[in-house]
Amino acid sequence: MNELESRVRGTVHILGAGLLGASVGLGLRERGVDVTLEDLSPTAVALAADYGAGRIRDAADPEPTVVVVATPPDVVADAVERALTEFPGAVVTDVASVKLAPYLELLRRGVSLKNYVGSHPMAGRERGGAIMARADLFTARPWVICRDRDTPAEALALVEAIALDLGGVLTEMTPEEHDRSVGLVSHLPQVVSSLLAARLVPATEQAIGLAGAGLRDTTRIASSDPELWVQILGANREPVIELLEAFAGDVTSFTQALRDTDAPGAKRRVADLLAAGNRGVGRIPGKHGSSERFITITVLIDDTPGELGRLLTELGELGINMEDLRLEHSPGAQIGFAEIAVVPEAAERAVADLAERGWRTL
Amino acid sequence: MNELESRVRGTVHILGAGLLGASVGLGLRERGVDVTLEDLSPTAVALAADYGAGRIRDAADPEPTVVVVATPPDVVADAVERALTEFPGAVVTDVASVKLAPYLELLRRGVSLKNYVGSHPMAGRERGGAIMARADLFTARPWVICRDRDTPAEALALVEAIALDLGGVLTEMTPEEHDRSVGLVSHLPQVVSSLLAARLVPATEQAIGLAGAGLRDTTRIASSDPELWVQILGANREPVIELLEAFAGDVTSFTQALRDTDAPGAKRRVADLLAAGNRGVGRIPGKHGSSERFITITVLIDDTPGELGRLLTELGELGINMEDLRLEHSPGAQIGFAEIAVVPEAAERAVADLAERGWRTL
Repeated sequence: MNELESRVRGTVHILGAGLLGASVGLGLRERGVDVTLEDLSPTAVALAADYGAGRIRDAADPEPTVVVVATPPDVVADAVERALTEFPGAVVTDVASVKLAPYLELLRRGVSLKNYVGSHPMAGRERGGAIMARADLFTARPWVICRDRDTPAEALALVEAIALDLGGVLTEMTPEEHDRSVGLVSHLPQVVSSLLAARLVPATEQAIGLAGAGLRDTTRIASSDPELWVQILGANREPVIELLEAFAGDVTSFTQALRDTDAPGAKRRVADLLAAGNRGVGRIPGKHGSSERFITITVLIDDTPGELGRLLTELGELGINMEDLRLEHSPGAQIGFAEIAVVPEAAERAVADLAERGWRTL
Repeated sequence: MNELESRVRGTVHILGAGLLGASVGLGLRERGVDVTLEDLSPTAVALAADYGAGRIRDAADPEPTVVVVATPPDVVADAVERALTEFPGAVVTDVASVKLAPYLELLRRGVSLKNYVGSHPMAGRERGGAIMARADLFTARPWVICRDRDTPAEALALVEAIALDLGGVLTEMTPEEHDRSVGLVSHLPQVVSSLLAARLVPATEQAIGLAGAGLRDTTRIASSDPELWVQILGANREPVIELLEAFAGDVTSFTQALRDTDAPGAKRRVADLLAAGNRGVGRIPGKHGSSERFITITVLIDDTPGELGRLLTELGELGINMEDLRLEHSPGAQIGFAEIAVVPEAAERAVADLAERGWRTL
């Protein structure tokens, strides 16, 4: 019996056999934990079981020690309540991307929450369903555990052990903090990106033909699933509305400053608003947000299989660790660009060495 | 004498020895064209000349046959007027990122424009200056040539020949069409990204810690130079203000739909607005905008030099042409993700072959 098995000491039951539920199941099964599955869709649960995410729960199964609710956001409160009622001895958690609304709904219904700990692994894929599930979906991703003064310590420890064992990077927050945080770093950018992309619908072909990396980056997440986002945004309505109102105010203030640019100090005001954007993006952790700390080398590559691999192998041979990499390909061109971010100390030598090996850099 | 030399039949004079001016100079010099340089800054022009972008113009030089104005946006009209007056036999073009305001200013001043053709190569780098200049900066990038009924055919042909020879992909537009187009595909995304990033300035560390690829993508261009953008946005004020007002209206409509989500049909309205974003992003040409046509395979890679190169080399060996590639690295994790977009037909085999070679895919 390994550490997780000995902590769980029984069965983990998963309600909802979609991408997240099946991935939790696969991960726990890999670690030797007994997992049962349940889903409103017999097809979905059978598929997840076939995938090895657990076995379909039947009446003969004993009460689970842990229940993971992985249903769509709009039925999380119902599913948590049912799990707490049906399995009074089990610790119940959920993985929904909004945390306050289901929590308040459970309080409103008078459900005892001594066995409940909400959580949210910041993992997902563009396409859902058990067929996309992976045991390592949560590896190195933030996993929020919701706690406040009333959160039962033992239940908290058990849910955190599972999140850690599945590879998540734990962060503890209250449901309010969580929802405000994901509102800012996930829900607001989603809406802004979608609305920006929607402006392209009536645009001329000529205008769209001038699109560059900036437009592609800012609108990439606009390809997300509308049905899922209606649920997420609806469940986190208040923080998102507050953020959208503030953002609309920012757009209006900026527009006003731009309208006044001939007035004294107005150019300064526009520059200050843009400079605040510099500071904001500088706060984002991780490789992508750190453009100020790295030098970008742009290498021209032929659009043929293996060219990029050859380039990156040679960078590896030179002992250079790329901090970031982006590909760009212009429509109608038989040439692409690989933008490689490296630490400043490595840039000069990298450019020289690449040139020596025949690569064209910009 | 090659084709471009025989077309130019003389000297190209470049006003403004920054990134674009010096890059034009380097490109023309590479093609054997005689280039002279001029800049208000003696240091800048000397540096560009040292770089091989041309020689510093002096009084003994004959009148150029072409003048390329590559000054900052706010002095383009002055520089074009001066060039047309000083060199009445030369064709004058400019490379500014806004086209209508300088054109109208020249008309207002009564300057004869029979020798003027405005242009805009859609190329640039995060850092400016001659030191960043490259002869192939324009390779495979859109290059807008402004024309209307009055544009002189001979001057147009000469400017287009230069743009083509420097590697640009030509697009003809009126100044109005150009400014509206770049307003939509470049200036609006810049402002939106900056304002979104500025919202992160007062955020908690905890919230920022939950940032994912979506936030990084949408705010990447918020690291652009505020001083340059004040000039660009100021020069294209009217289209940008119109776009920002429409966008603020979109944000407000969306907020209202979200506020009403319990009303009949309101969820549908939110979903429709998000679906319009799907359609908009689907219109963007090039590899990045085409997420619907490709399958994304996520491969886990150790954060050590050469690992990514090894992966891509092996993909090359398998004969797979990546349509897109993105790297992601979570803070605090010793593991990264490479997201590879491939055509659907190639996806299944790629995943199987990668697994066989020991790669973990999500």
